[in-house]
Amino acid sequence: MNRLYFLLACLLPGISLSAQSQQLMGFTESSAEQQRQLERAYDDQITPANLDEWMKYMTARPHHVGSPYDKKVVDYMAEKFRSWGYDVDVERFDVLFPTPKVRKLELLGPTTYTAMLEEPPVTGDAATDQTEEALPPYNAFSIDGDVTAELVFVNYGVPADYEELEKRGISVEGKIVIAKYQGSWRGIKPKVAAEKGAIGCILYSDPEDDGYYQGETYPDGAYKNEYGVQRGAVMDLPRAPGDPLTPGYGATADAERLSLDEAEGLTEIPVLPISYHDALPLLRALGGPVAPASWRGALPITYHIGPGPAEVHLQLEFNWEQAPAYDVIATLEGSAYPDEWVIRGNHHDAWVHGANDPISGMVAVMEEARAVAELAKTGWRPKRTIKYAAWGAEEPGLLGSTEWVETHADELVEKAVAYINTDASGRGFLGAGGSHTLEKFFGQIADDVEDPQTGVTVFERRKAAAAVNQGQDLHSFELSALGSGSDYSPFFQHLGIAAFNLGFGGESSGGEYHTMYDSYDHYKRFKDPDFAYGGALAKVAGRITLRLANADVLPFEFTRMARTLQEYGKEVMDLAESTRKETARRNRLIGEGAYELAADPTEPYTAPKEKAEVPYLNFAPLQNALGRISELADTYKPGQASQLPAADRERLNQLFMGLERKLTRPEGLPRRPWFVHHVYAPGFYTGYGVKTLPGVREAIEQRNFTEAQEQIDKLGEVLTAYADQMQQIIGLAATK
Amino acid sequence: MNRLYFLLACLLPGISLSAQSQQLMGFTESSAEQQRQLERAYDDQITPANLDEWMKYMTARPHHVGSPYDKKVVDYMAEKFRSWGYDVDVERFDVLFPTPKVRKLELLGPTTYTAMLEEPPVTGDAATDQTEEALPPYNAFSIDGDVTAELVFVNYGVPADYEELEKRGISVEGKIVIAKYQGSWRGIKPKVAAEKGAIGCILYSDPEDDGYYQGETYPDGAYKNEYGVQRGAVMDLPRAPGDPLTPGYGATADAERLSLDEAEGLTEIPVLPISYHDALPLLRALGGPVAPASWRGALPITYHIGPGPAEVHLQLEFNWEQAPAYDVIATLEGSAYPDEWVIRGNHHDAWVHGANDPISGMVAVMEEARAVAELAKTGWRPKRTIKYAAWGAEEPGLLGSTEWVETHADELVEKAVAYINTDASGRGFLGAGGSHTLEKFFGQIADDVEDPQTGVTVFERRKAAAAVNQGQDLHSFELSALGSGSDYSPFFQHLGIAAFNLGFGGESSGGEYHTMYDSYDHYKRFKDPDFAYGGALAKVAGRITLRLANADVLPFEFTRMARTLQEYGKEVMDLAESTRKETARRNRLIGEGAYELAADPTEPYTAPKEKAEVPYLNFAPLQNALGRISELADTYKPGQASQLPAADRERLNQLFMGLERKLTRPEGLPRRPWFVHHVYAPGFYTGYGVKTLPGVREAIEQRNFTEAQEQIDKLGEVLTAYADQMQQIIGLAATK
Repeated sequence: MNRLYFLLACLLPGISLSAQSQQLMGFTESSAEQQRQLERAYDDQITPANLDEWMKYMTARPHHVGSPYDKKVVDYMAEKFRSWGYDVDVERFDVLFPTPKVRKLELLGPTTYTAMLEEPPVTGDAATDQTEEALPPYNAFSIDGDVTAELVFVNYGVPADYEELEKRGISVEGKIVIAKYQGSWRGIKPKVAAEKGAIGCILYSDPEDDGYYQGETYPDGAYKNEYGVQRGAVMDLPRAPGDPLTPGYGATADAERLSLDEAEGLTEIPVLPISYHDALPLLRALGGPVAPASWRGALPITYHIGPGPAEVHLQLEFNWEQAPAYDVIATLEGSAYPDEWVIRGNHHDAWVHGANDPISGMVAVMEEARAVAELAKTGWRPKRTIKYAAWGAEEPGLLGSTEWVETHADELVEKAVAYINTDASGRGFLGAGGSHTLEKFFGQIADDVEDPQTGVTVFERRKAAAAVNQGQDLHSFELSALGSGSDYSPFFQHLGIAAFNLGFGGESSGGEYHTMYDSYDHYKRFKDPDFAYGGALAKVAGRITLRLANADVLPFEFTRMARTLQEYGKEVMDLAESTRKETARRNRLIGEGAYELAADPTEPYTAPKEKAEVPYLNFAPLQNALGRISELADTYKPGQASQLPAADRERLNQLFMGLERKLTRPEGLPRRPWFVHHVYAPGFYTGYGVKTLPGVREAIEQRNFTEAQEQIDKLGEVLTAYADQMQQIIGLAATK
Repeated sequence: MNRLYFLLACLLPGISLSAQSQQLMGFTESSAEQQRQLERAYDDQITPANLDEWMKYMTARPHHVGSPYDKKVVDYMAEKFRSWGYDVDVERFDVLFPTPKVRKLELLGPTTYTAMLEEPPVTGDAATDQTEEALPPYNAFSIDGDVTAELVFVNYGVPADYEELEKRGISVEGKIVIAKYQGSWRGIKPKVAAEKGAIGCILYSDPEDDGYYQGETYPDGAYKNEYGVQRGAVMDLPRAPGDPLTPGYGATADAERLSLDEAEGLTEIPVLPISYHDALPLLRALGGPVAPASWRGALPITYHIGPGPAEVHLQLEFNWEQAPAYDVIATLEGSAYPDEWVIRGNHHDAWVHGANDPISGMVAVMEEARAVAELAKTGWRPKRTIKYAAWGAEEPGLLGSTEWVETHADELVEKAVAYINTDASGRGFLGAGGSHTLEKFFGQIADDVEDPQTGVTVFERRKAAAAVNQGQDLHSFELSALGSGSDYSPFFQHLGIAAFNLGFGGESSGGEYHTMYDSYDHYKRFKDPDFAYGGALAKVAGRITLRLANADVLPFEFTRMARTLQEYGKEVMDLAESTRKETARRNRLIGEGAYELAADPTEPYTAPKEKAEVPYLNFAPLQNALGRISELADTYKPGQASQLPAADRERLNQLFMGLERKLTRPEGLPRRPWFVHHVYAPGFYTGYGVKTLPGVREAIEQRNFTEAQEQIDKLGEVLTAYADQMQQIIGLAATK
């Protein structure tokens, strides 16, 4: 019927063949056949119309943390889970959640302008009329402030941008900076600005990155209109997420709390997000040098850096109150191993209506739970316990999941098999990140689930996109490394529990993120109109859950992790080498006066200073551990493992459950003890963006070579402990 | 005094040392000392204030081809040259020069707009008031036309852009296209559009490439304001420049002329350039798919491709009349070798006032001539004849220089040593292209001339910029390869006379090119305010002229040419290889259905078709010739050559004068016999942009592999003839 009909006809037989010829990881031949039957029955249950109905209800009103409708949504979900037969706990944590009291931004000169700071309703989308109930645009965990100063445009406001400013002899000391959204997680921008001496920070969405440059704007199209403002948290997330008043432990009713003065992770300076409508008069009023080409956006002006003559007044006051974060936990107890938990979650709180973020993922979790419950009605039970979680207060800083994880840390370390996360999800191509010990396992699932639009597998579509758009030839699904930005972070990086993060995208982009315009209408028009991809997401995540819950031997393996670690190892060694060469070359050019000779003498210019030479580091501890992991990786025989006596298999599963945790160290990363994982962490200066082998990599990037050597040694110990655990597993699997 | 003071103090002694320790190419030790004295005396003559005075006079009114003030400028220059003691000829050619009669562009629907097509005067620059005398914006050698059709946005309008359109199933057949300026020479855009079936073509300057995105606009800053329009020729320049009615021979008074119907090189469809003010309503009215990210500009709209719903009416009529092109030729006869000519030229005609293009270069030529004349007053004479040329009618298609070269072809082939060209020139870094046989010679000059702003040599500044901005470490000055776009083309590519093209730039960019705003005021404010770089240009070009005129043995050499040819040879072999691999990969992906699977099924998409596989080509004829040239290159001993008896030296010089011509073949390149040089040519689909080894390279690019093999064989013959000439030279130089 459509133009893909022919293609489908050719390719479909191939899929089922390839799927059936594979040995299902973690299962014996007979248990695999049962599992496949179960999955077919599960798939038959998945009903996209349910997702539609639930989203419509849950996005009918704004439901941010502490709002009346957030509680309604929680009760609605709890009631659903209960009605399907789950044991449901609603755990409440009381967390610091600032909301705005005063928001004021004025351009005082040379022209004057008072920023609107509001998102007007749009015709045709009634949800956008609900401005009274909605939180206005602001950045959560900005401090209060009342500052007046000259303005400086700092591009994305990341450290490299300040190097450009330095070249031009421009300081932000005592100034207010205006930075574009994107290029880093938003919380990095005020953090770096404050480090550089700025006294205030304005964030805006440039239409080049997020607006008319991308496509027609809402309500004509999906993209950000001139009034849209991205809300969002600006706490120091790469240092630690969670409630600033209960660092490292659960914000239960009776927990001891820090005073507001002692709160950790708040910004050092006031910060406010604005629309490009509000940004235009400010940017237009800037003088000084023309911004470098890569800094310029799509506003119809010449972008200048300043400082000034634009002078702005920024005034912010917040209600520094606590609000309840509700986590809904629905449990289906395992028949064989009730104390081994497979946890599947998504958050439910939104900045406004949150149709895409987070409800698109939340309704998939609900449909997964409903479908599993239907299977359970036939008398079937998973071998392991399945827990479905709907997290509260994710938006201000992963509060609901972090407090839950901190509260239940000991039990989780003992019982958790893995955590499977989703969040906003749309239409297009499957994206997934996670622990590489589970990459091969995930690959089998990506080979089994059908893409709703084309009928080939979700992997085939991803593979085609990688080949055509990135020139990359994939042989099986590759997991990306996880940074931060959603609820997997406390499980994965704080406790060392293997984790996944999943979603579909690439054909549903828009500008609604964290605005008033992330509505049900927007989602239905521009994201996943018939929830076909919501259904596909439920099939992917449902398979992960069900296979982990039912596997005879947990389907971890080592070859992909070994290969990935070797790549990361090579990257940090190459980084040290390229940093050494670049430093030497740069110092030579400084000595030759080349920077001054290359600069225009009629423009202000400050030549760079020489940097200390990069010493040779001893990478042997890392190389030795990586070598051992690679050698061991190939010797694990999953076939043998599944033939073990039950008690040995159970012991093996326990070893696998503790495996990811071997990649952690209790004292955590330098300057951020909450992050204990030594392979994956959000970047200290990127935020959501991952840094792999973070202790070593960031020390080199920050040119702290003493620390780099210390971290290499520690990483070597961590990887050696990991190899020891591998060896135990391999030894046990080989037992006759 | 300024921040470079310290730097200068350190570096200056270094310069003079290095300069004095070099052996001057082409001179014996004693003649070198005389030459250096001469150059010092020459430098002392260079007076930037003269350039200022002459520019002011010559840009006082618009002076396009055929205008009253063009003749005034010609008379002014002729009188100057005569007053300095030169023999002056003003040669007149009557060339086809269309000027606009009707220019009309209307948006008929869905909204309506009538384009202004005018550049209003700006306050503070009286020159811009002279609209009555000025040619309005148009493209010379567009045909007449009156067309109405839907509009399609085609990015830069180069072949790759039409491949993107094909993917989206969009044809321009029967449509009017609108293309951004840049990305290719402007004449390529209507040529390709016509090949694809379009019936009209609109060109505009997007503010991202040429407008407020770059910097403040005129008169506040140097960049293109919303009304500025780039005029320019659109004849099929890569096929042949020059008068369309006298192809291949001089447009003298009594020459036979083709009728207008037979004229060669005119566009196939009407074409009109417009401002971004006029383009905005047209682009805003487009529907259809959103343009790919790389196509979008800096207008505050979502860029769509169309076709339509925008419908436009384009009406153009021209006066198809002949106009006089005046070439001023000022000759100083050589004392020893009057029949060996060193020719130094720049054009004088402008689109409007042309302060930058071409007068900034023209006044440098004049100052060079004046300074040489001052030297001649002392009784000194150059050994060889020096000819200073001021070309007419360059703007519509290199008409003045081409007709002169075609008229005097036989004499030039016999007598020309080299041609040295300049055109628009500004402030900053020395750029130069030319024959690589003269690269080493030019390097000595770049080591001798001082940069006006920093006091280091012009090479040192260029080297610093290359190191800092391009990460490229230069050891000596490297000449770029010459394409087209100025008056060196007929000398170099039609006759095979060694040539240079020079200018300063990089710190004087602006949007005045071919607009009403290329005025004296603009030049003084934003280009080279005190003509210091005009003086430096006169010193560089003057040294080339004087050294070539006085050398005992002409300072050609072979090692740089051999190295450069090896690079070009490797490039075309790599191109064949990468084309083969890309074709195979693409065909494989097509076979796998990857393109369709990677595309969004909800958007129109046409998967690409398979292409014929790339055969292995026999590169041996090229490789053998290159191998021989490389081997021979090192065996030339200039030291021995300068010791030869006078008659042998003269014979050697004759061989050198004929050397570049060995790189030509009389029948020229495929489909463009006018271009006979087989190493350097303007690209058939790039225009100004050079294609080296053009016969072979373009055949591979166009996937005509039969022709590629033929061209490899022919190139092998050409390079063998070059090697034979090298061998003669080397043999003669080695005579005891």
